[in-house]
Amino acid sequence: MTVPVAFSPIEWTPSGVRILDQSRLPEREVYVEIRGIDPMAEAIRSLRVRGAPLIGIAAAMGVAAAAEAAAAEGSLTPEWLASAVERLRATRPTAVNLRWALDRMQQRATGFAGRSWGRDVSQALRDEAQRIWDIEAGMCVAIGQAGADLIAPGSTVLTHCNTGRLATGGLGTALAVISEAHTRGMDIDVVVTETRPLRQGARLTAWELARLGIPGRVIVDGAAAALMAKGDIDVVITGADRIAANGDVANKIGTYALAVLADAHGIPFYVAAPLSTFDTSLPAGEAIPIEERGPEEIGPAPGTPAFNPAFDVTPASLIAGIVTDRGVLRPPLDAAIAAVVH
Amino acid sequence: MTVPVAFSPIEWTPSGVRILDQSRLPEREVYVEIRGIDPMAEAIRSLRVRGAPLIGIAAAMGVAAAAEAAAAEGSLTPEWLASAVERLRATRPTAVNLRWALDRMQQRATGFAGRSWGRDVSQALRDEAQRIWDIEAGMCVAIGQAGADLIAPGSTVLTHCNTGRLATGGLGTALAVISEAHTRGMDIDVVVTETRPLRQGARLTAWELARLGIPGRVIVDGAAAALMAKGDIDVVITGADRIAANGDVANKIGTYALAVLADAHGIPFYVAAPLSTFDTSLPAGEAIPIEERGPEEIGPAPGTPAFNPAFDVTPASLIAGIVTDRGVLRPPLDAAIAAVVH
Repeated sequence: MTVPVAFSPIEWTPSGVRILDQSRLPEREVYVEIRGIDPMAEAIRSLRVRGAPLIGIAAAMGVAAAAEAAAAEGSLTPEWLASAVERLRATRPTAVNLRWALDRMQQRATGFAGRSWGRDVSQALRDEAQRIWDIEAGMCVAIGQAGADLIAPGSTVLTHCNTGRLATGGLGTALAVISEAHTRGMDIDVVVTETRPLRQGARLTAWELARLGIPGRVIVDGAAAALMAKGDIDVVITGADRIAANGDVANKIGTYALAVLADAHGIPFYVAAPLSTFDTSLPAGEAIPIEERGPEEIGPAPGTPAFNPAFDVTPASLIAGIVTDRGVLRPPLDAAIAAVVH
Repeated sequence: MTVPVAFSPIEWTPSGVRILDQSRLPEREVYVEIRGIDPMAEAIRSLRVRGAPLIGIAAAMGVAAAAEAAAAEGSLTPEWLASAVERLRATRPTAVNLRWALDRMQQRATGFAGRSWGRDVSQALRDEAQRIWDIEAGMCVAIGQAGADLIAPGSTVLTHCNTGRLATGGLGTALAVISEAHTRGMDIDVVVTETRPLRQGARLTAWELARLGIPGRVIVDGAAAALMAKGDIDVVITGADRIAANGDVANKIGTYALAVLADAHGIPFYVAAPLSTFDTSLPAGEAIPIEERGPEEIGPAPGTPAFNPAFDVTPASLIAGIVTDRGVLRPPLDAAIAAVVH
């Protein structure tokens, strides 16, 4: 029997923020204290902290902790905050939660008067960062509830990448749906794609499933189609890094392939994401910036380069529904999104 | 400028067979001498020598070299040969070339009289093994010629796994088509899928492309669909491990996904294989045995198992043509196969 063991991917400390270094999982469970804006930017860029909702939370907490230190030295100013936000915003381009969280932090500070800010401002920033975390965690609960209603008892659910507590600081997005279905006693089985190049499925989701006591199996990304053809997959559900106004979804590379394959096999394909993931300033997925990462993540033989986009775009037409904290959005997704995102 | 450097994945030695240990590539180019049946069985099982045509060649050469040693000691008998063939046949179940080569070796020995065999039999076995290699190498040349006619100048060709000299002992199958198109000056660009779990694309095909001076890029398996959606892929061509009478193709896990994705994007999907890869004793792909390999090749986090089928089956309906040494077979593939395989 698996005994679930509590863990948190992020925590406040007296003088900074403690993160679970996800790049070391599952071999090592290493917690690292991050002090200052640039160390947090490095942690996000190097994926030691990752997952669209969690990087927003981590950036906000990093700003708040560094602002406290700056206030103590008398160096907390509007310019300091603007620079901090800019450096963190530049770390990763695709997930919109990062921008959403940093925008909230900046807005919270506007209205405080003066050229130099004190403890009142840093306390407000800390409150705001905690609020962002609470909002994301609350949205995860609502996503799990709404999504579990979509899953038939006894289903085998295929998911990609990592969308659990490690990605969100809360119950998760797609993994919250799976976890809620499991908690309801629905006899769920999970198939997790490895998710190359950084193996978030094999390393992180498999680790979370084992901790949660949820039965699952890891497959290579290329094996999903064969399982679908055999009738072994009942439903596919993934997370999202950014969702455009028309319902096109940017998510981890390989998601679009799963959506096409699910469609070809008559399997419903769902996306789970909080409202903080929607970016209705973009009309369609083609406008979403796609991060390209280094070839060393793939490691080709010398002499032949690698091409390493970290995300792809799944068109709304392939999506059976988007599970949000405001319920399940059904096609036509553009209208459904317009009705809940303002 | 890349200077092509000759290499051979297999060679005769005075007392055995020398193989290039493909499990060490691309980091190390290590050649190992194999003496005896069980060491060759181990080399095949552990993928130190791999690729459907090459494992047939290697098994035949291994039998011939060990038979010479047995003849020298007076222990070469029909029972010795039957046991040797059985142990090698059991190493990998999916590729049919292995069985084809071993059947030829046994047939070559039938007709020699006596309960104990001498040098005449071991010499015949050596001749037969060399003939098998020559046949496979010749078929590669013919496949390259026939296949290059299918490729438009300036095309970007997507391929999977490794189908070059390392896989065949000759020019290759799918990679022979690419190589011939390049040799013709057709300005070919190649996209190679990494091919998890054992990374034959990133490790071996990328290594061969660099040696051949053919421009290419490596992507993770999950990125193929995104490149297709952008219009970056003109044609997909893969090898095969076994082809049933109706044209269903067993090949490296991930091949079926590429065929479905190519179909969804209107991209032609070709298979390249010598006639030794066809198994018309099987009516359809569902009868092809699919090897399951160990979970350690995927390496999931502890507590969650892995499911690791090494191959999948692509239905004939998704295949635009099969490039063989007897020309390109076009749909309906069952009739085209019946016309050339007897």
